Amino acid sequence: MIIMQTDATPEEIAQVIKEVKKYGLRADVSRGAYRTVIGLVGDETKMPFDHLATLPGVKEAFMIDTPYKLISREYNNFSETGERPFVVKVGNIEIGGDEPIYMAGPCAVESKEQLFKIAEGVKKAGAHILRGGVFKPRTSVHSFQGLGAGGEEEAREALDWLRAAGKKFEMPVVTEIRGETQVDLVAEYVDILQIGARNMYDQDLLVKAANTGKPIMYKRHFGAGIEEFLSFCEYIAAEGNKDIILCERGILPVGKGKGYTRYTLDLSAIPAIQKETFLPIMADPSHATGRRDLIFSMSCAAIAAGACGLMIETHYNPSEALVDGQQMITPDELKDTIDACQKVHKAIRLSKN
Amino acid sequence: MIIMQTDATPEEIAQVIKEVKKYGLRADVSRGAYRTVIGLVGDETKMPFDHLATLPGVKEAFMIDTPYKLISREYNNFSETGERPFVVKVGNIEIGGDEPIYMAGPCAVESKEQLFKIAEGVKKAGAHILRGGVFKPRTSVHSFQGLGAGGEEEAREALDWLRAAGKKFEMPVVTEIRGETQVDLVAEYVDILQIGARNMYDQDLLVKAANTGKPIMYKRHFGAGIEEFLSFCEYIAAEGNKDIILCERGILPVGKGKGYTRYTLDLSAIPAIQKETFLPIMADPSHATGRRDLIFSMSCAAIAAGACGLMIETHYNPSEALVDGQQMITPDELKDTIDACQKVHKAIRLSKN
Amino acid sequence: MIIMQTDATPEEIAQVIKEVKKYGLRADVSRGAYRTVIGLVGDETKMPFDHLATLPGVKEAFMIDTPYKLISREYNNFSETGERPFVVKVGNIEIGGDEPIYMAGPCAVESKEQLFKIAEGVKKAGAHILRGGVFKPRTSVHSFQGLGAGGEEEAREALDWLRAAGKKFEMPVVTEIRGETQVDLVAEYVDILQIGARNMYDQDLLVKAANTGKPIMYKRHFGAGIEEFLSFCEYIAAEGNKDIILCERGILPVGKGKGYTRYTLDLSAIPAIQKETFLPIMADPSHATGRRDLIFSMSCAAIAAGACGLMIETHYNPSEALVDGQQMITPDELKDTIDACQKVHKAIRLSKN
Amino acid sequence: MIIMQTDATPEEIAQVIKEVKKYGLRADVSRGAYRTVIGLVGDETKMPFDHLATLPGVKEAFMIDTPYKLISREYNNFSETGERPFVVKVGNIEIGGDEPIYMAGPCAVESKEQLFKIAEGVKKAGAHILRGGVFKPRTSVHSFQGLGAGGEEEAREALDWLRAAGKKFEMPVVTEIRGETQVDLVAEYVDILQIGARNMYDQDLLVKAANTGKPIMYKRHFGAGIEEFLSFCEYIAAEGNKDIILCERGILPVGKGKGYTRYTLDLSAIPAIQKETFLPIMADPSHATGRRDLIFSMSCAAIAAGACGLMIETHYNPSEALVDGQQMITPDELKDTIDACQKVHKAIRLSKN
Repeated sequence: MIIMQTDATPEEIAQVIKEVKKYGLRADVSRGAYRTVIGLVGDETKMPFDHLATLPGVKEAFMIDTPYKLISREYNNFSETGERPFVVKVGNIEIGGDEPIYMAGPCAVESKEQLFKIAEGVKKAGAHILRGGVFKPRTSVHSFQGLGAGGEEEAREALDWLRAAGKKFEMPVVTEIRGETQVDLVAEYVDILQIGARNMYDQDLLVKAANTGKPIMYKRHFGAGIEEFLSFCEYIAAEGNKDIILCERGILPVGKGKGYTRYTLDLSAIPAIQKETFLPIMADPSHATGRRDLIFSMSCAAIAAGACGLMIETHYNPSEALVDGQQMITPDELKDTIDACQKVHKAIRLSKN
Repeated sequence: MIIMQTDATPEEIAQVIKEVKKYGLRADVSRGAYRTVIGLVGDETKMPFDHLATLPGVKEAFMIDTPYKLISREYNNFSETGERPFVVKVGNIEIGGDEPIYMAGPCAVESKEQLFKIAEGVKKAGAHILRGGVFKPRTSVHSFQGLGAGGEEEAREALDWLRAAGKKFEMPVVTEIRGETQVDLVAEYVDILQIGARNMYDQDLLVKAANTGKPIMYKRHFGAGIEEFLSFCEYIAAEGNKDIILCERGILPVGKGKGYTRYTLDLSAIPAIQKETFLPIMADPSHATGRRDLIFSMSCAAIAAGACGLMIETHYNPSEALVDGQQMITPDELKDTIDACQKVHKAIRLSKN
Repeated sequence: MIIMQTDATPEEIAQVIKEVKKYGLRADVSRGAYRTVIGLVGDETKMPFDHLATLPGVKEAFMIDTPYKLISREYNNFSETGERPFVVKVGNIEIGGDEPIYMAGPCAVESKEQLFKIAEGVKKAGAHILRGGVFKPRTSVHSFQGLGAGGEEEAREALDWLRAAGKKFEMPVVTEIRGETQVDLVAEYVDILQIGARNMYDQDLLVKAANTGKPIMYKRHFGAGIEEFLSFCEYIAAEGNKDIILCERGILPVGKGKGYTRYTLDLSAIPAIQKETFLPIMADPSHATGRRDLIFSMSCAAIAAGACGLMIETHYNPSEALVDGQQMITPDELKDTIDACQKVHKAIRLSKN
Repeated sequence: MIIMQTDATPEEIAQVIKEVKKYGLRADVSRGAYRTVIGLVGDETKMPFDHLATLPGVKEAFMIDTPYKLISREYNNFSETGERPFVVKVGNIEIGGDEPIYMAGPCAVESKEQLFKIAEGVKKAGAHILRGGVFKPRTSVHSFQGLGAGGEEEAREALDWLRAAGKKFEMPVVTEIRGETQVDLVAEYVDILQIGARNMYDQDLLVKAANTGKPIMYKRHFGAGIEEFLSFCEYIAAEGNKDIILCERGILPVGKGKGYTRYTLDLSAIPAIQKETFLPIMADPSHATGRRDLIFSMSCAAIAAGACGLMIETHYNPSEALVDGQQMITPDELKDTIDACQKVHKAIRLSKN
């Protein structure tokens, strides 16, 4: 971490960046209202901080030994100016701002009709962003893998529907990328790239996705501790892309016997992560519980815990969905859920002021 | 399970119970508004249901193959009369009713002054029930084990303070029993017996506690699945004591690296358990998170998830507490938390109606 | 920890013990060949070590901040004399010595005939110690709870068979205690008291069992970390009873989907625990795997990992057993398993020398 | 699954394959000594089995509802001819055959000198296959990522050393691929492609790696159940590549407190997996324990449990290694470990015959 003097010149800053590169690291430059802070990406133990501290314009230079510093609240106090929270902007929508943001849509895009019908329903229910899977990560190779599995042509067709539905119903759209070869293709069509839980550790995918410059919706793996989640998130930030929306979607349940929920929605991760990073974090009660009848309760609980929004799988007829029917709710149920969440959000906001 | 005819006579019921005992099982008799249902405690495979079905007054007799039936919602539809939820009554307080119930107090009773000062504080903050540990379960034999560890005299003194503080500030009191020899002693003084997470599997303690007839606050072990938790709970109900308050207090966290919370508060267990059993379930955000700064958020989230109440450790000066200081909040913070929870509760109730 | 001078007198030692008690702690006295070491049981932070260091005969006095010191290898170097490993002696048998010890027998004692027939079989197969459950911990109150559940008379009858079978076939016997009220009763009959996984955290039971002076077979809970396991074990040692045989019996499995083993036998815990404590540790592949067809492999693996012995459930006809039939092997299979384990043990011993 | 008649002609088989493709599935053809079996890859629910059964040459056609059938022992009885186990051949080496195979080498390739010196050492110690990481998956972006992180030129240089060291010391070589763009590059140089634990779920990487036709060393994720592991493995087999070597490298530990091992080596997974699939499975005690001092014991235990081989990180001077020094052993220690494992292997083999 290198903190520049308030009056450091662009040339002095450029000189420091050049020096950093000489040692095989990259520089992450945060230009704040008062001064510029340069984070280092790579192995800081190679860096001669004493030498850096002597360069013109440098106020302080020191090593930070933490696996996530670019996204940490602590090391970004320097560069955050004013009191506004950090938000990820997608069109007119601010994720991480004052109001919860709701993403909804089908688990998988199945047809144009299905998608448009659901898009219309979730828009009316109050959703802000439309989701729909084209490339589906599946445990079994023998299950439906999303329309994207049919080849580039089918993938483009499905992505085109998604973009068109978003345009028609005025919602930005988000879909999952599961492998590196899908990144550029998907980035042509959607507003937010989702990296799913099973790909959380796939650092090459993170890097490739980050470099599209698109906002990334990044989900925690079900076996990952919070520190691990944030450490891997740093791979995205290290590419210079901090438009990251974190998402808690359930961790492995404990214990023997019948599993009453698919995963365990770890809601205490939400305020705990908010103490660590300035990035917004939302919750996905659909994948976490795997049960329609728990979505309402867990949505309200997630908002009460401070989530900046929710991702909820929605279908006008869950029982005929090709994937995950048992966890999808209808647009009407979505409306009830969003209405309740908004009341809870107001209750919390009132209590905090 | 034996369902009696609507007009079955007491003699016919008595005859069935006698027959059940002959086969080494016990009978759990639920007299509903319309008919009587007899649950069987023990190994039902030994029971000749065909024979039972022929006894006078018997409508149906069949085997139920589930580890918890006495506390299950499904098999108690028969005996629940009307639409009121099942509540555990403690003095004037109803746990599981329309309003959340807040239990608060110090982790451990340390002195009369400490206890009375905290009791006064939590009462003012809106708590309904006073908690305070006399026998503390501790991971290390080298840690403070509660005043009860000093012998019966010290234990009685501390229990007496607890009872007196409850009386003075008009709150029922609850304390933990950790071993069988403490049960009768503690039952003389307190209104609710708590069985802690580490003793969840201790079936002999469950049986002994159940037989005091006192309400039992029963906490889930951090490694126990929901089915296991309810199966062991059945040991209490099998003694004829259904005044049981379940409590979720956090499960083992997953993953590598720094642990940002002590345990993982499993809030989806709350609605999931409510689908299974009619018993009320509350949450303990103090032990689950182990962090003062997360109590507010997780309390609100628990109420939003449908918890019937909360147990929150409170101390006027957390930093001087002998046990668990890092997770206790002050009475003022408790007040803010309860106020916010009440607002959330109202928001949810409005949304459901 | 107080280290006495080599020539400290008994009076000087007595004086130190008296001083220790004054501060509310207890003294654990280890008289080694060269000097005496006094461990402290209780909260050492209360102890004025500077003052203790000035007492006559004291060489060093210092605080040890670890949850297990009485059983730790590190703090017992002082008192271990010579190079022999620490062993628990039960009759002529040494557990923790040069040769692996095999405990075998039925999960539950069902009848005198069943027990004697199995005892004869396991003796012929090479077992050293006979096991048989009289008080069975069960997840469901509706399952068979062992003959001990029938009342004291039945319990004594079953315990009497166990003692008689042990006598007839010249094997010490071990059975499980599940609650405090069973301790004295069981201790009248058996050579080793077993505390099962589900009671690992039950510190009042540990204390009561320790005070019988009998060797304790102490099993790790399936949700307990190693440090936690050893910390609770310290409750036994703190009563002055170090005749403790640890036992690894499987931890909670991870992941989704079909569970191919009941628990996960944590074999790396065996050498890891051996680095921490001088107490012997064995393995129970029966409960860990829950599968007959894995017992052979996991027995060999446990011995290869360095286990001091095995506990293996055995029945002449597993399919007719009342409890755990799917994990019991026959005496013939036991013989094959023990023979293979002995070959593996020799292979390892040869390799180490 | 379609079982052809013993005398089915190639034309009949081709006709069935054509029919399968019509329904959007792929055919996996196993030509056994007596008959041909056609497995189906994809969603079998779409397939009209009644219709298929009527085609000329078809004996039976039926649906198999399991997430892994191409690699399952059960459905490959048909195609396995004779009694030889399934082996993966790499040069002259058979993995899964009568003798355990040892893979050893440094965690990361650091220089030509380092690699050649270690290669020479492990060859002398008895290793069969040389490992060395060029692309290192790391939790922190700020840690050393392997020489491959320096760009294609550096990657090729390091891979070239690896190939040359393998040639010089007559060992096939294995290295990890972490992202899709590395697959073709790495496949030019090495004999076995390793897919690490963190990429286990990365189905697009699995597909791409499978299509190189190279043998794949496939490691279980630390949060994956066995069924999940095998289900994802099926993605490789579904591309027609069954040269897969499974590897158990430790799962998430349970419990609170100090972690004495990095992960928990799940040795019961080895025989359990062997009951499910014909694919060979080995163990990696280095990553599982993270401790040099446990490698010997856990290596012996893994071989005793039936592992077909071991992967052991080795370095002539572990303390100067850039990655994972605390878990590497020296070539001399490797020799002792391999010697002991061979003795254990013989002991087990003798016992089974």
